[in-house]
Amino acid sequence: MNLSNAAIIGVGTIPVKSSSGKSLTELFVQAAKEAIEDSGVSKIDAIYVGNMMSGFLQNQEHLGSLMASALGREGVPAYKVEAACASGGVAMNAGVKAVLSGLDRIVLVGGVEKMSESTTPKVTAGLMMAEDRLKVATTGVTFVGLNAMIAREYMHKYNVRHEEIAQFPVLCHGNALDNPKAQFHKKINVNDVLQSALIADPLRLFDCAGIGDGAAAVVLAPGEEAQKHTDTPIEVAASSVATDALSLYQRKDVTVFEGSRRAADEAFRQAHLTPGDINVMEVHDAFSVLGVMALEDLGFADKGSGSKLLQDGQCARDGRLPINTFGGLKARGHPVGASGMYQVAELALQLSNRAEKCQVPNATTGLCQSVGGIGSTVAVHILRRH
Amino acid sequence: MNLSNAAIIGVGTIPVKSSSGKSLTELFVQAAKEAIEDSGVSKIDAIYVGNMMSGFLQNQEHLGSLMASALGREGVPAYKVEAACASGGVAMNAGVKAVLSGLDRIVLVGGVEKMSESTTPKVTAGLMMAEDRLKVATTGVTFVGLNAMIAREYMHKYNVRHEEIAQFPVLCHGNALDNPKAQFHKKINVNDVLQSALIADPLRLFDCAGIGDGAAAVVLAPGEEAQKHTDTPIEVAASSVATDALSLYQRKDVTVFEGSRRAADEAFRQAHLTPGDINVMEVHDAFSVLGVMALEDLGFADKGSGSKLLQDGQCARDGRLPINTFGGLKARGHPVGASGMYQVAELALQLSNRAEKCQVPNATTGLCQSVGGIGSTVAVHILRRH
Repeated sequence: MNLSNAAIIGVGTIPVKSSSGKSLTELFVQAAKEAIEDSGVSKIDAIYVGNMMSGFLQNQEHLGSLMASALGREGVPAYKVEAACASGGVAMNAGVKAVLSGLDRIVLVGGVEKMSESTTPKVTAGLMMAEDRLKVATTGVTFVGLNAMIAREYMHKYNVRHEEIAQFPVLCHGNALDNPKAQFHKKINVNDVLQSALIADPLRLFDCAGIGDGAAAVVLAPGEEAQKHTDTPIEVAASSVATDALSLYQRKDVTVFEGSRRAADEAFRQAHLTPGDINVMEVHDAFSVLGVMALEDLGFADKGSGSKLLQDGQCARDGRLPINTFGGLKARGHPVGASGMYQVAELALQLSNRAEKCQVPNATTGLCQSVGGIGSTVAVHILRRH
Repeated sequence: MNLSNAAIIGVGTIPVKSSSGKSLTELFVQAAKEAIEDSGVSKIDAIYVGNMMSGFLQNQEHLGSLMASALGREGVPAYKVEAACASGGVAMNAGVKAVLSGLDRIVLVGGVEKMSESTTPKVTAGLMMAEDRLKVATTGVTFVGLNAMIAREYMHKYNVRHEEIAQFPVLCHGNALDNPKAQFHKKINVNDVLQSALIADPLRLFDCAGIGDGAAAVVLAPGEEAQKHTDTPIEVAASSVATDALSLYQRKDVTVFEGSRRAADEAFRQAHLTPGDINVMEVHDAFSVLGVMALEDLGFADKGSGSKLLQDGQCARDGRLPINTFGGLKARGHPVGASGMYQVAELALQLSNRAEKCQVPNATTGLCQSVGGIGSTVAVHILRRH
């Protein structure tokens, strides 16, 4: 472990549910308390909350003070960090920078989203807050519609069939069967994906992550003191964020997420690693095609050949490169502002051998990728076991 | 200058207007471009955007990528930071931590809010997102109503008359006369305040900041290279954030903002300074009583005697402790997520002798205080001339 890096010393995740019956605050507090208890620390120096839609869906902002209060930790510096569906990923980035700055020592970072108890049209409108309101959302296109355009162009340009892309949700649904906190426990096959309800051509129901409530959190400490708190500190070997042109219409090639490329390049630079060093990975599969593109844009496959990685069980938990080992956004669930933190938490559990039935063998180094908008913001973290 | 601190190397502010006719993006870009041009840098390593209400008022989130794109800087890491009306203050805190972390070198921090083109009831509902939606906002109390309760209790507990508190907006309106970017250019006296329309007893129109559009930004660099960029770098000697119990009903004494006390204590500790070292100050006077309380809670006056500081011109620009020298929230304007950044920018202009007609003499060290909610989050920065 590079002692000058931050380290994860506690992890908390709550079950993702289609309708939790819990308030935004209750969701966050449950995950945060679990992470704090797991870390064993008593004092928290700062709290960062990742969330995308609470202003729009719950008419609630100011989640920093709200959550600090609800945790009985009023006084502690706290604020919210947002980058659409990458809100969890960028909150982690803010927390890591806080530790590295020397201004905060023990930092709680959590992501939360409550999407239930709002109508589907309302959530659909909320997701479009990730795109340009004035120039794009006003055309009436939906967020899944934009991703469908990406899927159509991807399949056309690289001559990839839907059956190939559909392997991604099949993998995720399989992994989620062993995760008691996953939103969906339903084994599916490629035919199920192809025959499920059409959402936005060519994307079908099982190509798309669902709507759910959830929260996940970690506690960070400076690397040099992490071992005081736990026998299995997980080093944050890299924390990077990159953007791309916000809107799809501004892109030269919609089948490449330059934000993923940039964030991955920077993360590998920070960690002095290459894709070949990664043993386990959590990628942002809000839509099946995004999971496949992630494998390419992060440097693990050539353009157009991402789905080939999924063949022959290479990405299964006992394969060469296990991916979305707890079910990913598709099957663990995608409470948008929390998803990036679920990825970080799940990787930390894998690397500390605490993933229970989802455990992969012999992983020492993992990468996760959190995407906001149409690849408009991408956060990448590389975690490493001591 | 402590070279291990961050430093401000560029400043940009745009006029605050009751109705700017500009989009959220146009407001931010104008201030950001001014700050970048002022700094002379070509490459920006990260962008932090402070904003409170864009999700609720404009149905627009993802301001990091949106603004990076609009600035022609797609690729650059960017995200939004939020803590209600302290969003500008906490964005500055995030930017400072980014520089101190060593992960970002040249950082653009800006705050923006567009409150026009929404109805007053909509903005009123938006401001209540700073309080607990489920437990407080649902009672029907408004944000100004909560502050009116504070004012009533403050006046009762310390036997302070409205005339005394009303000196605060009088000071601010006087200072704004010389600020061409101020929202209000209207000289007022104490009688004008007392006779203005009743908003929420005892607060009257001239006790309250208005509704407006605005944006302000600064460019930060590591202290050790700041002088390469400008002859007048301004050191960020302290950057602190503290919270309090979120809601007014949870407080033992509503006339004290413990968040201000905590943030100020921490800021003075970081800077190795005391209140006696501060030459100029920008405080969060969203309501007249908050301006007076700030002087007390930040350590410049005993409880109940803040308004005595305002007597005899002590806080005028040529006085012992100039306050809100460009007009403060009351008269420069309070586009909520931008206000904390206006304070930082204005202090930097003062300390680099670039405040033009608003210039105070001989100031080397300044403090600003940005408040979110009912004192539920407070950010304090101390800036120092080289």
